[in-house]
Amino acid sequence: MDVVALAGGVGAARFLRGLIRVVDPARVTAVVNTGDDLQLHGLHISPDLDTITYTLGGGVHPEQGWGRAGETVTVATELADRYGVEPWFTLGDRDLATHLFRTDALRSGEPLSSVTSRIARAWGLPIDLLPMTDDPVATVVTTDDGRELHFQRWWVQEGARPPVRSVQLRGGAASQPAPGVIDALLDADVVVLCPSNPVVSIGTILAVPGIRELLRRKPVVGISPIVGGRVVRGMADRLLPAEGVEVSCVGVATYYRDFLDAWVIDQADAQLADPIRALGIDVAVTDTIMRDAGVAADVAKTALALTR
Amino acid sequence: MDVVALAGGVGAARFLRGLIRVVDPARVTAVVNTGDDLQLHGLHISPDLDTITYTLGGGVHPEQGWGRAGETVTVATELADRYGVEPWFTLGDRDLATHLFRTDALRSGEPLSSVTSRIARAWGLPIDLLPMTDDPVATVVTTDDGRELHFQRWWVQEGARPPVRSVQLRGGAASQPAPGVIDALLDADVVVLCPSNPVVSIGTILAVPGIRELLRRKPVVGISPIVGGRVVRGMADRLLPAEGVEVSCVGVATYYRDFLDAWVIDQADAQLADPIRALGIDVAVTDTIMRDAGVAADVAKTALALTR
Repeated sequence: MDVVALAGGVGAARFLRGLIRVVDPARVTAVVNTGDDLQLHGLHISPDLDTITYTLGGGVHPEQGWGRAGETVTVATELADRYGVEPWFTLGDRDLATHLFRTDALRSGEPLSSVTSRIARAWGLPIDLLPMTDDPVATVVTTDDGRELHFQRWWVQEGARPPVRSVQLRGGAASQPAPGVIDALLDADVVVLCPSNPVVSIGTILAVPGIRELLRRKPVVGISPIVGGRVVRGMADRLLPAEGVEVSCVGVATYYRDFLDAWVIDQADAQLADPIRALGIDVAVTDTIMRDAGVAADVAKTALALTR
Repeated sequence: MDVVALAGGVGAARFLRGLIRVVDPARVTAVVNTGDDLQLHGLHISPDLDTITYTLGGGVHPEQGWGRAGETVTVATELADRYGVEPWFTLGDRDLATHLFRTDALRSGEPLSSVTSRIARAWGLPIDLLPMTDDPVATVVTTDDGRELHFQRWWVQEGARPPVRSVQLRGGAASQPAPGVIDALLDADVVVLCPSNPVVSIGTILAVPGIRELLRRKPVVGISPIVGGRVVRGMADRLLPAEGVEVSCVGVATYYRDFLDAWVIDQADAQLADPIRALGIDVAVTDTIMRDAGVAADVAKTALALTR
């Protein structure tokens, strides 16, 4: 079975760790959000790609779910203490090696998808890892008071506090799916939406022209990132209202209804299965809190079973 | 007394540490070689500027004479071990902060002289520190077998072993002195040639149009980097023959004879004072091996006394 997973960061990485226990990893392609990629100190940082790489490659910080295990911050400390460079975004030393390797390749003209593939190989990743696009895009949050902030500024620097009026993928309309994305979707037997942020992870992938249209032609199953009306992690609850979406597994299913065939929701939301089914979407109810790879594998198995 | 010092790396830094004990540091301008600047992993590295900054700022590795004290190499190790990036040039973690800070500024359009000044301020440097030029230049070594190598490749990567046919400052003819260089030279009461490599440190500075001509109009005193027919440090002995220059304090004085007024040589070379005087150059003989800042101060005092 060929599987394409649309993926954000930590939640997606933890889900993928389970998915590759229940399907042949060589037949899994993850298409990953690059909307929150950022330029910092001249480096190109791809937080979601790196989170998935480090998680599947065995190098992630286990509790944190992002960044490197055993990480140090010598460079960032020196930048701050010596040069007064505002340390608003964590930049570990080992992590920095990835950013340097990637940035150097990009500056020499290599596409993001190509260097991503080399990084994935260096980590021995068993799946294909693709950025959603090779083109420069940026998720921009417009706050209620009219400021336009890069997503990472709003989320990491301002703690997701400023109320949000709208979110857009700048450069999205002019972007093209990265090489391999369309082919992987055409070949896919099923497309899985990882339990990622519907607006700034999955939503940005859907904003790359051509992807949403293909999903409408494919069996698509998703795992709700909302449990009991709350986000499992992250700040989707601060963004969904700006999209006019209720913060619930029903709300997100509705948001995806033009292409979503099946939806895995948590036991805590069992009573919401029927309203979702009323949208014409299959539902499975299970434990979706992925405490470990075993639970993640069960969630993946449940999701894939729904599409048969 | 306004002093301009033409400077390379370690030898110059150690001399400057003494110079600022005997003249008002606020009236010292160091014009520093950038011919061996290099791009590595997309970073702009300025070895000589950094060596002087770290030395005068109190952060240099004391025995090594370059790089940072208490340095770690987490990033470089990760680049090598994980991404297979050839670690031919030492890249410490703290040092990397400087490279990131500089490179980010350069990419945003700031001239090298401006960011150099900000770095010098961050380190509390008491002197003015100027790159010889803001323009992109590169010292290129042509080997006997016809290969053209960036100086750092020849020196650091190939251990200065390949015999050298010629050395040139690529981009030199089209370069301009950095802002402040000409004014500092015009205002200088004396120009000091630090005990740096005559070919790839002082020679490259002289290759920037306008500088050599100004030296002919100023009192110029130098400290010989050759003692007893051998280099005190570095590999000038591998380069001087390519320039047709004898590896001796006489040879180097001859190389500089169109502008050199006075020359400080080591006690070991006392017998060579007369041949140098025969060139019309004043000579002082002293202990020039700068074991500490005290000796360096004595050397500086001797040099300055020669120009009165």
